[in-house]
Amino acid sequence: MAAPILCERDLEFMLYELFDAEAMIARERYADHSRETFNATINTARQIAEKYLVPIRQKVDTDQPTFDGKEVHLIPEIKTAVDAATEAGFVSATADYELGGMQLPLVVAAVANSYLSAAGSTTTGYLWLTSANCNLIEAHGSAEQIEKWVKPMRAGRFAGTMAMTEPGAGSGLADLTTSAVKAEDGSYRVTGSKIFISGGDHSLNENIVHLVLARVKGAPKGVKGISLFIVPKFLVNEDGSLGDRNDVALSGLFHKMGGRGQTSTALSFGEKDGAVGYLVGEENKGLAYMFHMMNEARVMVGTGAAATALTGYQYSLHYARERPQGRVPSQKDPLSPPVNIIEHADVKRMLLAQKAYSEGAFALCLLGAQLADDEKTAPTEEERKAAHLLLDFLTPMIKTWPSEYGPEANDLAIQVLGGHGYINEHPVEMFYRDNRLNPIHEGTTGIQSLDLLARKVPMKNLAGYKACLAEIQKTIDAAQGGELAAEAEQLSAALATLQRTTESLLGAMMEKPIDLALANSVKYLDLFGHVVIAWLWLKQGLIAAAKLEADANFYQGKLQAMRYFFRYELPLIEVWSKILTDLDGTCYEMQDAWF
Amino acid sequence: MAAPILCERDLEFMLYELFDAEAMIARERYADHSRETFNATINTARQIAEKYLVPIRQKVDTDQPTFDGKEVHLIPEIKTAVDAATEAGFVSATADYELGGMQLPLVVAAVANSYLSAAGSTTTGYLWLTSANCNLIEAHGSAEQIEKWVKPMRAGRFAGTMAMTEPGAGSGLADLTTSAVKAEDGSYRVTGSKIFISGGDHSLNENIVHLVLARVKGAPKGVKGISLFIVPKFLVNEDGSLGDRNDVALSGLFHKMGGRGQTSTALSFGEKDGAVGYLVGEENKGLAYMFHMMNEARVMVGTGAAATALTGYQYSLHYARERPQGRVPSQKDPLSPPVNIIEHADVKRMLLAQKAYSEGAFALCLLGAQLADDEKTAPTEEERKAAHLLLDFLTPMIKTWPSEYGPEANDLAIQVLGGHGYINEHPVEMFYRDNRLNPIHEGTTGIQSLDLLARKVPMKNLAGYKACLAEIQKTIDAAQGGELAAEAEQLSAALATLQRTTESLLGAMMEKPIDLALANSVKYLDLFGHVVIAWLWLKQGLIAAAKLEADANFYQGKLQAMRYFFRYELPLIEVWSKILTDLDGTCYEMQDAWF
Repeated sequence: MAAPILCERDLEFMLYELFDAEAMIARERYADHSRETFNATINTARQIAEKYLVPIRQKVDTDQPTFDGKEVHLIPEIKTAVDAATEAGFVSATADYELGGMQLPLVVAAVANSYLSAAGSTTTGYLWLTSANCNLIEAHGSAEQIEKWVKPMRAGRFAGTMAMTEPGAGSGLADLTTSAVKAEDGSYRVTGSKIFISGGDHSLNENIVHLVLARVKGAPKGVKGISLFIVPKFLVNEDGSLGDRNDVALSGLFHKMGGRGQTSTALSFGEKDGAVGYLVGEENKGLAYMFHMMNEARVMVGTGAAATALTGYQYSLHYARERPQGRVPSQKDPLSPPVNIIEHADVKRMLLAQKAYSEGAFALCLLGAQLADDEKTAPTEEERKAAHLLLDFLTPMIKTWPSEYGPEANDLAIQVLGGHGYINEHPVEMFYRDNRLNPIHEGTTGIQSLDLLARKVPMKNLAGYKACLAEIQKTIDAAQGGELAAEAEQLSAALATLQRTTESLLGAMMEKPIDLALANSVKYLDLFGHVVIAWLWLKQGLIAAAKLEADANFYQGKLQAMRYFFRYELPLIEVWSKILTDLDGTCYEMQDAWF
Repeated sequence: MAAPILCERDLEFMLYELFDAEAMIARERYADHSRETFNATINTARQIAEKYLVPIRQKVDTDQPTFDGKEVHLIPEIKTAVDAATEAGFVSATADYELGGMQLPLVVAAVANSYLSAAGSTTTGYLWLTSANCNLIEAHGSAEQIEKWVKPMRAGRFAGTMAMTEPGAGSGLADLTTSAVKAEDGSYRVTGSKIFISGGDHSLNENIVHLVLARVKGAPKGVKGISLFIVPKFLVNEDGSLGDRNDVALSGLFHKMGGRGQTSTALSFGEKDGAVGYLVGEENKGLAYMFHMMNEARVMVGTGAAATALTGYQYSLHYARERPQGRVPSQKDPLSPPVNIIEHADVKRMLLAQKAYSEGAFALCLLGAQLADDEKTAPTEEERKAAHLLLDFLTPMIKTWPSEYGPEANDLAIQVLGGHGYINEHPVEMFYRDNRLNPIHEGTTGIQSLDLLARKVPMKNLAGYKACLAEIQKTIDAAQGGELAAEAEQLSAALATLQRTTESLLGAMMEKPIDLALANSVKYLDLFGHVVIAWLWLKQGLIAAAKLEADANFYQGKLQAMRYFFRYELPLIEVWSKILTDLDGTCYEMQDAWF
């Protein structure tokens, strides 16, 4: 029997026990749904993953996309898989019925999508980018743009991308130089180069809709002069049929460490007369619109990282249960048969760590998905605002924690398999390579940490920060005096450490050089992330303790993973807190010439 | 200008300031040498690395070895590079003159070899295996075996391997099943399968000399019934010319995550009549002999891991100095030009961490090399014994710490380059993949941690442990009251933590279930390793503080990297110590069914 892609029992727990997804059905938008339709969707995703994605994952990794100077070539199995997922509706799982969607809650769609991400790794990345592109145009584009671009994307005819990064300005969007000039017909002519554009060229769809950041001639410098344009690969006629090739050329493919199911491209806009582009919304507001897509993309990145961690955990668990090797130290008799490696304490440690990281990360991502549902569909305006605030606050952690600890989990999966983990007969080394992109794209870990400390914590008079702490406190209160009182106390102390550290840093941001105050922001993100994950583990532990008898093995596993996180991981925050409250200047003071 | 492979100034510091390599010249064995010959050897290695290895490293990674069912094919550039290194004497740098060697101290050869390892990654792995194979036969083989096998290996005609791992028994050598039967002529016929044999087949040399662990028919079960055999690819005639092909067949190649310069093979011994093998030493003592090679291989693995970390650090440092992007938080004006990324505090953190990890790891490996020299050539028997004891004690740390924190450094190099770190236009993602094997082969981290805690600490009435602590104490004493008194105090406290933890664990090993007492041994290895690396950083810091004026930038860098390690890394030991002294049973108690 092969290793399962994901643990079905755990998904059920996450969706219906930890997050009460069934309660969503009471909301008008989801009225047609039921636990049965939720499960049917997830089941469809699992079947597509098993039938189309798992069988090709090694080939996708080995037979990388090629560029013959004119066109990109992918192995044909990728189109078959992408088409199957598209036909099953996974580009539009959460979209409105009238746009061809299924109107599923994101918290449910995220679970279904995770089957595709876990099994297909980046092969299904085309779908998520297309979906996020649609969501942006739906939110900020005109009715005509929705008709012309979104509908064919939702239907799977067109694909979508986001094109931000430039050769001279990676994370520094303020310096982007791609330019746009208004033409007489109201459209624009876009000129410039973009790199690292995922899915920037391929023949999986009839057309590709690029969302491109560019600067209108004469616009202010910096981030305040950036506009957003729809720049299609092919122009589209009034009747929706394809017109001429637009002036967008593939200038090269990147050969990546992993994630080879999805092309990473260098695109050249306007090598001839300028690429025809259509302004989204108003001029100079492009970055704000793009953040709509980026925030969604950040939650997607976190969820993908968590899904890859979960599947690596399942794979290495399956291996450890079947692979006999060695004896435990108490077995002195060399004639005794070897044990399965799951019996070795250190293998259990590596599996428990993977469980703690991956299920903790996944819980955080589903919390993000549920908040995204709530900000749109919670019954009251107040609840919607509260959800929006908390999601906005948590986004840098939802993006980063799974992206940092997901690859860590995959690294442990390699180690569980030993030499077998290092060769491509097993997918675990590929999982690691695929996952390694996640701390880089959609805002590096460093950038996320500055977003958290310098922007999200202070915003609205600490409102997001306080809301987050209040949620954590509720769980502590619920656990106090009960079976998990010790963990409640430990989390309470951790919360105090977090608060003390935050206050110290906010003070430093006022009184000390700002570059020094922010110098260790990555450690702050680590600290806050660990507290949030510990909180989500305590939440899981409370359910497990209450229902222990009903499914003893499963809930014992939950409790043990919680304990692992509290004993092996949470204490690290004291080390990070000291660096932060000391306002340690080791890195800040380091000079180029000293290296 | 390209990034340097290694930092020459740092190598000079390591060799002549931290370790007094020049003092070796006073010993008879090295009497022909001088600082000039040492430097000339290192310089030759650098030139070979620059000329033959750096230019091919991407091609070596992309164009993996292939097997056509009969033979292995490597790209021809590998042979050119290996031949150049062989002709320059790097198979035999430390060997006796009469065996064709250069009689260099290992501490010098290790630095030279590091140029080849850093630049060529695993391409030069063929050389190190051949050298280690020779060293084993020189120590335990007969004069005839040395004449017949070692001399052609030292001369570069033959290559050498070590063949231990079997499909059914990876780390569990007690269960190996390859068998040997004595023939009438005194030789043996060997039958069995081995996997993951590095360099197990290729045409770089005329012949390949496998050192094979096998069980003589009727031998005791377990590790006490293992013998060691020389099993060549081609038999060798009396006159040294090649005879018939021996019954050793390549049954397959493994496709690895990295390290693709060196084949990893599955070998089949004795598919026909049994492969002709020649017993090394006595029957049933094979594992002890193999440990001669394994201990050397473990130091080599650590050194290779450190070298790959060093070169990734140099590469990312070079990139960070030349890549403009973004602004520091205090630069409010978007019109100000972007800074080079080395100005960002978080990039400095990632570079400092790499410096602290890689130079700390390299110092540990050179200490190991110097001890290996001392155990052979120190003036007095007492000194030789002391060196042997300390090296034996430190070996699991020399193998593991660089193997764990070297890839960590390479991971940070990827992150410094951002998206550019994830693509193969830059070698940093390859460095990571190459380095990722090191925590697995030659005894996994888990196995090394059991070796440290269950064997090396208790051995000879804690003699190795105490000797190690005494060395650390000497450096603390030297630093006390001086400029680095704060670090001395911190290391002293760390030493107390280590002692308290060790005593607690030794008690548990007597009084508690042994499987529980050893369950967190990896954390013990982490703890001890961090104390040892902090010690070596304090040693470096003392030199830097004393000589600061002489080369201010370089020594400031050393002091800052030391501070980084003391402030960001060393405090972690308190977390690990608590897990250990609590005798935390989270992993030990975890049950298969709970996962």
